[in-house]
Amino acid sequence: MLTYDLDQYKGKSLYESLYMCIRNDILSGTIKADEKLPSKRALASHMNLSVTTIENAYSQLITEGYIRAEHGRGFFVNKMDLASDTSSMSILSQNKNDTPYIPEPEPEPEYDMDFKSNQTALTLFPMSTWSRLMRNILSSQDIKLLETVPYNGIRSLRTAIAEHLHSFRNMNVDPEQIIIGAGTEYLYSRLLTLFGRDSIIAMEDPGYKKFADISKDRGILFDYVPIDSGGMSMERLARSKANILHVSPANHFPTGTVMTVSRRMELLEWASKRPDRFIIEDDYDSELRYSGKPIPTMYSIDTRQKVIYINTFSKSVVPSIRISYMVLPPLLLSRYRETLSFYSCTVSSFEQLTLAHFISEGYFERHINRLKQHYKENRDLLIEAIKESPLSLIASIKEANAGTHFLMRVNTYMNDSQIRKEASERRINLAMLSDYEHELSLRNTRTLVINYAGLDKEKISKAVAVLEDIFETDIKRSQAVWVPRGGLK
Amino acid sequence: MLTYDLDQYKGKSLYESLYMCIRNDILSGTIKADEKLPSKRALASHMNLSVTTIENAYSQLITEGYIRAEHGRGFFVNKMDLASDTSSMSILSQNKNDTPYIPEPEPEPEYDMDFKSNQTALTLFPMSTWSRLMRNILSSQDIKLLETVPYNGIRSLRTAIAEHLHSFRNMNVDPEQIIIGAGTEYLYSRLLTLFGRDSIIAMEDPGYKKFADISKDRGILFDYVPIDSGGMSMERLARSKANILHVSPANHFPTGTVMTVSRRMELLEWASKRPDRFIIEDDYDSELRYSGKPIPTMYSIDTRQKVIYINTFSKSVVPSIRISYMVLPPLLLSRYRETLSFYSCTVSSFEQLTLAHFISEGYFERHINRLKQHYKENRDLLIEAIKESPLSLIASIKEANAGTHFLMRVNTYMNDSQIRKEASERRINLAMLSDYEHELSLRNTRTLVINYAGLDKEKISKAVAVLEDIFETDIKRSQAVWVPRGGLK
Repeated sequence: MLTYDLDQYKGKSLYESLYMCIRNDILSGTIKADEKLPSKRALASHMNLSVTTIENAYSQLITEGYIRAEHGRGFFVNKMDLASDTSSMSILSQNKNDTPYIPEPEPEPEYDMDFKSNQTALTLFPMSTWSRLMRNILSSQDIKLLETVPYNGIRSLRTAIAEHLHSFRNMNVDPEQIIIGAGTEYLYSRLLTLFGRDSIIAMEDPGYKKFADISKDRGILFDYVPIDSGGMSMERLARSKANILHVSPANHFPTGTVMTVSRRMELLEWASKRPDRFIIEDDYDSELRYSGKPIPTMYSIDTRQKVIYINTFSKSVVPSIRISYMVLPPLLLSRYRETLSFYSCTVSSFEQLTLAHFISEGYFERHINRLKQHYKENRDLLIEAIKESPLSLIASIKEANAGTHFLMRVNTYMNDSQIRKEASERRINLAMLSDYEHELSLRNTRTLVINYAGLDKEKISKAVAVLEDIFETDIKRSQAVWVPRGGLK
Repeated sequence: MLTYDLDQYKGKSLYESLYMCIRNDILSGTIKADEKLPSKRALASHMNLSVTTIENAYSQLITEGYIRAEHGRGFFVNKMDLASDTSSMSILSQNKNDTPYIPEPEPEPEYDMDFKSNQTALTLFPMSTWSRLMRNILSSQDIKLLETVPYNGIRSLRTAIAEHLHSFRNMNVDPEQIIIGAGTEYLYSRLLTLFGRDSIIAMEDPGYKKFADISKDRGILFDYVPIDSGGMSMERLARSKANILHVSPANHFPTGTVMTVSRRMELLEWASKRPDRFIIEDDYDSELRYSGKPIPTMYSIDTRQKVIYINTFSKSVVPSIRISYMVLPPLLLSRYRETLSFYSCTVSSFEQLTLAHFISEGYFERHINRLKQHYKENRDLLIEAIKESPLSLIASIKEANAGTHFLMRVNTYMNDSQIRKEASERRINLAMLSDYEHELSLRNTRTLVINYAGLDKEKISKAVAVLEDIFETDIKRSQAVWVPRGGLK
């Protein structure tokens, strides 16, 4: 009869040890298929164990399919059909440490100076307010908090957003039109389904490349359409087969261009020509406009249900919170409800409710105002410092009035890849306009995209110094040319 | 010269009112294209306003593209190219209340008794513990909390999950192999990309239909493969063109079948035959096993990097928290890093850190144990009550040892659609096995899928009573047949 030393499995219960002994014998072939196992009572008495222990071990073996109980006849070993020795060996050895070797991920490069990363002024985030709101919500002990969230998000957050859009963007939106999602990328993915597999998306060139990556990932065709001083080029759009536009009219990335009213009208007119044409209005960054009133949205002047408005709180509140939203025109909303509402909402109820209070109690507006002031100060100081430095001899700045970056065109003998090389040798993270261009990606823009979101006051003189250093030769050459007519004293 | 009554815009600043007056005149055609506007100084003096006010209004009109400044010549109106009268009217009227009419969404039906919804025992959620952990994290004021989360999730959560998998599932996993996402649906979507557009997914039939919906939405082909008593049918799989399997070996939904070891081996062997074959092991619900030790995962016996393990905390912690994860074998991990790491992580850092502490400080295990005890009690009470009721004459129960539901086969003269009708007339939410079947969806299973997660002790006698009511005729008939041989006294 089966006899085992159960002491070999330290820390395991008796039934588990017995289960493993029998299992190992079956896997190794020591006990053959269709062999009969001893009765529970007989094995219990033989091994001096309780019948319950044997029962539990047999029961686990039955559940996992190693043995079967035949009514009135007893327990029999199943035919294992072990596909290969490796497989049974892998079960036998599964207690050994076989954590696979995982290559370390590429380490993030460390920079001495960062003009590229889209950082947010983290220290301005009102953590204690957020924490208090979250605490109030959690301590309310409301059972509703724990229930599955509706596919489109929690009603009170959608209402707070609708009110915010009314006050700050002059938009009239029903909370039912709003869909909450974990990030703009996620919502963009949903939209691609909504438009259908045969759609072709027009992306602004230059522009934000991630949406092209997502379209590619989803197997949806896309096309780059250049922008001119008024926005997406109508002439080039006419030559494209695209039926969906992704545009950022309030503040084009990275040029900072504001789309003119007449271009907005032309695009709306373009969209009205075919039922499958739509415009995604990405209003990202629009809160951060430093002077003048906010530019009216395309959504608010669209009379034909052609514009989907999309925005995020990751930039305007804090990057670690993944909450974005989109506003669907009624016709698309019906289509969404029919075809996509089976997707669960991706944002937890706790954070949705906290954000709802954050907005409706006025903290969001205050936070935006603080951010604006902070960024504007950074921007003004940096531009001032550049203007007062020798860089002014070779650089001209396109002063963007919104967002967290500006363009700086440099009169240099270097081409774009030489500039990149100089920056990288100095451990400086630097983006150039050509990095965001598709059609003219090999062009020498000699234009830097300077993101100042992370540049605090203390860093500004260093920032100017490293830029001077990169363009030292150009500055010297320029100074040499600009020697006063009378010659040096 | 232009003259306006600025009082009409109450509550607006002077410059904004002036901007709107001029804009409206341009849109209505009162001021024509290329017409010259008065100089700032002249208009200021004419309207008795400061030059700054005029400057701000002109500057806003320039930003929005209504007018242009020509160097040394003054300000001129742009050609509007107004595509249609409707568009310009819509700008003019945008302050009016034009919130679109949104049809109310279909109201959720209200039920008197719910045997279907996958409810969780919400009252068991340790809200105060969660709240305390969250508060500690928020009050730590750590700047790291606010930074963008890595694409695969926060390291400390991935480490806590790896340790949990080691202790409870005997799996050896490197935290680098884990990808965190906002829900299983989201991760499943990522996997579909990873496998490629030409993949064909085999779904268990019967099974969980949502994954078929997602595949359909993504334009990925799928196939239903019936399950037999051991799991997915090998014979039927051989006839399918599928290269990806989605299976739930620990606890098949809704039958509760545990996949046998030899079937696991056969599926792994099947996967090894071609490089593009993979198995998604959905371990959903596996924590809720009421007796015996947990069934070893396919992941842990896979020696060829063919199994992706996927699980969620929405079921085991609370539905309103959207955190799931998957474990990728090293080869797929490299592919993920190369092609999909551009997608941002969809879960906020606050909740990831709270969950990390919840797991590593032992609260998760305690919570699972409480849930198990609660569900087991519900299940035992309900089954006991059914057995003691007249239902026992016509019903046989397949006692699932895991999850939150069991199958009840009823000896009835009604077919499945008649049973559905009877239930719906009584406002009872009831699922039948045939609801989850594709191939045999018109078959009369006469089998109820009873989910007892939401059935508290108080509800049990009512639950049995409504079931008795539905099958009243069958019970009476059965009682009539089972009259004792000697006849009624």
